[in-house]
Amino acid sequence: MLKKAAEMVSELRQNMRGGQGEVEIIHLFQPGEFKGKARLLARIILQPGASIGMHEHSGEEEIYYIEAGQAVLTDSSLANEVIMNEGDASLTLSGQSHAIRNAGQEALRLLAIVLLND
Amino acid sequence: MLKKAAEMVSELRQNMRGGQGEVEIIHLFQPGEFKGKARLLARIILQPGASIGMHEHSGEEEIYYIEAGQAVLTDSSLANEVIMNEGDASLTLSGQSHAIRNAGQEALRLLAIVLLND
Repeated sequence: MLKKAAEMVSELRQNMRGGQGEVEIIHLFQPGEFKGKARLLARIILQPGASIGMHEHSGEEEIYYIEAGQAVLTDSSLANEVIMNEGDASLTLSGQSHAIRNAGQEALRLLAIVLLND
Repeated sequence: MLKKAAEMVSELRQNMRGGQGEVEIIHLFQPGEFKGKARLLARIILQPGASIGMHEHSGEEEIYYIEAGQAVLTDSSLANEVIMNEGDASLTLSGQSHAIRNAGQEALRLLAIVLLND
């Protein structure tokens, strides 16, 4: 199955997980299209200053992969906030929490993958 | 868990799945790091002319997401070869086959996600 970028379902979320500003979520594929044990396969775009607030994953885990821009990641498995640049990735396991914000001057584009644990 | 781009495990494969040239695979995270039902979370880089040959997925499915460059995708669910550009994605379900090649003049960079079905 081919999904051209222009065909992807996208949505806008305000103050996602208690964060700042607007977050654009572009679904590569949605549950029902894929059969594997995942919940989300999406591009996420945050404009400068925008963020996704701290939230916990339970029974699932999330990977962030930075496509472009600069992020500040807070993750309960890390002692301090960390900077993420293009090509960097984070993994937040079940029982852990994370938040991410665009700390740069350009759009932050990342890929988010939520894998179910069972 | 943070994984900086420079820390990722990478490997080079020659004539992958019967394809042409060399393929670089950069693992964002490896099984054991993630707990979810997936087998591969990786960036794949093909230089101009390089390809991954036709192969079938069984009991699993693979998503390709084009980060940069231009690809020609062959997929058993599609009647013809198709061009994929930046931002496009493909999904090859269990029982289906696919192949991909770099048809452009620059490096083809894609993200590959293999989800297990059980």
